[in-house]
Amino acid sequence: MPLRFVEPAAEAYGFPLVIGQLLNSCLLTARDNEIVYRDRSRFTYPAFRDRLGRLASGLAGLGAGEGSTVAVMDWDSHRYLECYFAVPMMGAVIQTVNVRLPPAQVALTLAEARAEVILVHRDFLPLLEAALPGLAGVKAVVLIADGVDLPAPAWAAIEYETLLERASPDYPFRDFDENAVATTFFTTGTTGRPKGVSFTHRQIVLHTLACCGMFGASRRRGLGIDDVYMPLTPMFHVHAWGMPYVATMLGLKQVYPGRYDPTLILDLRAREGVTYSHCVPTLLQMVLTVAEARDEDLSGWMMTVGGAALTRALCEAGRRRGLQVVAGYGMSETCPTVIHARSFARDGLDDPAEVAALTLAGAPIPLVATRIVDASMRDLPADGRSQGELVLRAPWLTGGYVADADASDALWRGGWLHTQDVAVRHPDGAIQIRDRLKDVIKSGGEWLCSVTMEDIVAELDEVGDVAVVGVPDALWGERPVAVLVPAPGATVTAERVDACLDAAIAAGALSRYARVGRIAILDALPKTSVGKIDKKALRLLLADGTL
Amino acid sequence: MPLRFVEPAAEAYGFPLVIGQLLNSCLLTARDNEIVYRDRSRFTYPAFRDRLGRLASGLAGLGAGEGSTVAVMDWDSHRYLECYFAVPMMGAVIQTVNVRLPPAQVALTLAEARAEVILVHRDFLPLLEAALPGLAGVKAVVLIADGVDLPAPAWAAIEYETLLERASPDYPFRDFDENAVATTFFTTGTTGRPKGVSFTHRQIVLHTLACCGMFGASRRRGLGIDDVYMPLTPMFHVHAWGMPYVATMLGLKQVYPGRYDPTLILDLRAREGVTYSHCVPTLLQMVLTVAEARDEDLSGWMMTVGGAALTRALCEAGRRRGLQVVAGYGMSETCPTVIHARSFARDGLDDPAEVAALTLAGAPIPLVATRIVDASMRDLPADGRSQGELVLRAPWLTGGYVADADASDALWRGGWLHTQDVAVRHPDGAIQIRDRLKDVIKSGGEWLCSVTMEDIVAELDEVGDVAVVGVPDALWGERPVAVLVPAPGATVTAERVDACLDAAIAAGALSRYARVGRIAILDALPKTSVGKIDKKALRLLLADGTL
Repeated sequence: MPLRFVEPAAEAYGFPLVIGQLLNSCLLTARDNEIVYRDRSRFTYPAFRDRLGRLASGLAGLGAGEGSTVAVMDWDSHRYLECYFAVPMMGAVIQTVNVRLPPAQVALTLAEARAEVILVHRDFLPLLEAALPGLAGVKAVVLIADGVDLPAPAWAAIEYETLLERASPDYPFRDFDENAVATTFFTTGTTGRPKGVSFTHRQIVLHTLACCGMFGASRRRGLGIDDVYMPLTPMFHVHAWGMPYVATMLGLKQVYPGRYDPTLILDLRAREGVTYSHCVPTLLQMVLTVAEARDEDLSGWMMTVGGAALTRALCEAGRRRGLQVVAGYGMSETCPTVIHARSFARDGLDDPAEVAALTLAGAPIPLVATRIVDASMRDLPADGRSQGELVLRAPWLTGGYVADADASDALWRGGWLHTQDVAVRHPDGAIQIRDRLKDVIKSGGEWLCSVTMEDIVAELDEVGDVAVVGVPDALWGERPVAVLVPAPGATVTAERVDACLDAAIAAGALSRYARVGRIAILDALPKTSVGKIDKKALRLLLADGTL
Repeated sequence: MPLRFVEPAAEAYGFPLVIGQLLNSCLLTARDNEIVYRDRSRFTYPAFRDRLGRLASGLAGLGAGEGSTVAVMDWDSHRYLECYFAVPMMGAVIQTVNVRLPPAQVALTLAEARAEVILVHRDFLPLLEAALPGLAGVKAVVLIADGVDLPAPAWAAIEYETLLERASPDYPFRDFDENAVATTFFTTGTTGRPKGVSFTHRQIVLHTLACCGMFGASRRRGLGIDDVYMPLTPMFHVHAWGMPYVATMLGLKQVYPGRYDPTLILDLRAREGVTYSHCVPTLLQMVLTVAEARDEDLSGWMMTVGGAALTRALCEAGRRRGLQVVAGYGMSETCPTVIHARSFARDGLDDPAEVAALTLAGAPIPLVATRIVDASMRDLPADGRSQGELVLRAPWLTGGYVADADASDALWRGGWLHTQDVAVRHPDGAIQIRDRLKDVIKSGGEWLCSVTMEDIVAELDEVGDVAVVGVPDALWGERPVAVLVPAPGATVTAERVDACLDAAIAAGALSRYARVGRIAILDALPKTSVGKIDKKALRLLLADGTL
């Protein structure tokens, strides 16, 4: 027999999963909760809703509407949050512009996304000015003066606050097809030319709901309406990991820190009572350095760390300050949250097993299907040793890259999204990311995990920062090289590094081929625009003999 | 311009929201958590998954498949949970049969749902035997012996555990259209002939996810993987409020109590460490009576109370035992959760405002749109006084009744689901249900809220149970009558009742017409099959002079 379907009543509402519907409950439950921007402004949720209407009306007056792209170049702010909602709620697409890219690439992404209206913070005026000449189709630029009285360039139509002030709060938002595109941005960094990724309303709503399930499927405390949220991940980067949508749907108080400044971040945490944030390891390190200097207790602050591996050393450093650090995993193509360590990690335990659980990738969030496969897509055993590529299915993964059919087909080869991350599954179900597929070092027929080697070498007192990359070798195929930033005043030798790796090899934590033999010294490791170590650049420096 | 859409890669997976996908994460995170049935059996999540495969294979062997209806007549059990998943995961429809209906109505619902395979607990054999003769199309009956060695009737094909034992765990579950019907059951009680309601896979998955959002949008503690769940709402009734799906997706330990027995329920709570349940007020009263007698501390047990108004007296009685009682609101047509008191209610406070917040309906859960409207669908002000009908939109409301176009059209008149509940909205956003539209008493041009009057009268020491209903009156239109069950050994008079109402009127809590003038005495109030006071029956008794 066929599947059973029922015909709904003629007037039954076919409720689409659109971003505007995320506001239904918080506008009733969170009337007094505030959305705070640095020390500059604070709005209640009803005021936020009023501003959404004004922003949409104002943008419509500048020519934006259904199907338009509205590009945003701003620091993490309440304005960005307003754009996260108002632009897609109009049926338009928000482009979250990566302001760390060079002007030519910014121009490329604005052109490819067909940006019609651009909102730009005064700090990025030079960047946009350099990019604008190559752009056709831009109808208007809105200047974000951010409290400073500065002469607007002639090509800026209006200032953001003036736009809102003059516009009506009563924009006629309507529901529409949940599969319409809501957001777009460009993946960056280690993989060459930026590739456009977009997400639909349905994908973002489902990601938002499933993130709530993640907090429920947790051994640690979840999120509640009394929590205070502050993003520490750029809002141009995968919707700040989607958490502003989660925080808004739940009606949490929110704090937006503007341009990242570790001192201000710590001040805001203390003053506004922030309890939940997320960031990449680099920023956590910066915040912890200031917290150490101020001898500040960070108890009660939960921090999801992702974007790069959370090392044991960093996790422990956070815990010593009282921070509840836990790893998460995702990528631009996955909206991004798919895996988190919360199911396996408890609070308040000090044994090494606990730290290991906190720094694992962990468990898939609800609805995410995970497999670890070999090159022929055969499943590998969950033995904690068999390394393969992590592949995924979930209802919020991007369907492919904008205007790049080959890359899209490779991404979805065999009906599963290929993360290009090498992982193992432990017998208890936990997934551990070992390496990027292209960063894994193949030496003497064995796969060496560069991240594990880095973790071990980083524990040497003489080492400030470290990256391990493979270089071609006639005999071994590849050999690992440790690129090191020594700690202030310290000296490091290859022998010292290998001695510490030998200890790990003897303990069975590493393959016996995991010795570097050679090191290279730098003042600082090259980073990508989102703060990850740029191993592609390191490999080039090693190949051309610079290092 | 039109909305923007993107074409996904050819092999990109179009992930449908189907019930089987709810298992993806818990099978990895909850390997050691158990699903417990009374003191009889306990299974880990991997064993549960194995049994799902066996159940589906076994049912397929009996002729069930995509589009079939499999009917279940059982107490709250691990078997019922297995059917909640395995039957819809096969593409079949699970009918959760209301076993409290008379045989003729059971037969009617089985016929209307086109049940092909029926799973029946030995306790319901007489009920099914009486219903079977009128049924065509039943291919097989599976007996649930529940540990007792009894001779199966000739028409039972096989016993449940034998069916699973002999079947393969490797059923080829597949994904399919998320709009396929997953469940069906019949609404009961105060509104005449049972009406069939069905829910799709998409609706149940979204309800499950949004319930996680409810726990996040909460001033009280949420649910985490260390919580232990025990339903105290019959599993035939709106999927036990959908919570078994939530508990399973989150990987919680679950405890199924079988036939309700307050002593066993309290024993299971203590022995298995139950932390979260939900029930109707009647059952809570029964459990509290036993807990009082045992002088048992119920601290750490959260309890959502719905299905009927949570009175202040019952809420306070629960709190005195340490129970964290909080009101929820929903109906059969709404899957059911739509409103809850968690956003407004905190734990551990003893002031009357807190109890008032706990017993309110409260706030919509994420994605639920609420309006309170007059008869012409005009919105009423949020002043805590203006009473109107609560109407709803959410992505998990039923599209209509099975084979009843008129009732379906009335349900969805104007594109909003009509709850037929009279409510007010308070200035802080909280929704308070005042009465059923048909139970509200219209006297002297004013709407009297029978539930508020009952709440006040119930606080008299002489009153055991009370219902207030309207009777026709030539002068007033309607006049309220209090139907009372006196407390053991006590006597109640109309004067005493009106004196206590007068106090509330003087305090401004009631309209000045809210006096009963007349009372009627009964040994027990008539209840519907799901335990609500049957006001329709009371009105008949009053109309025909019996009372």
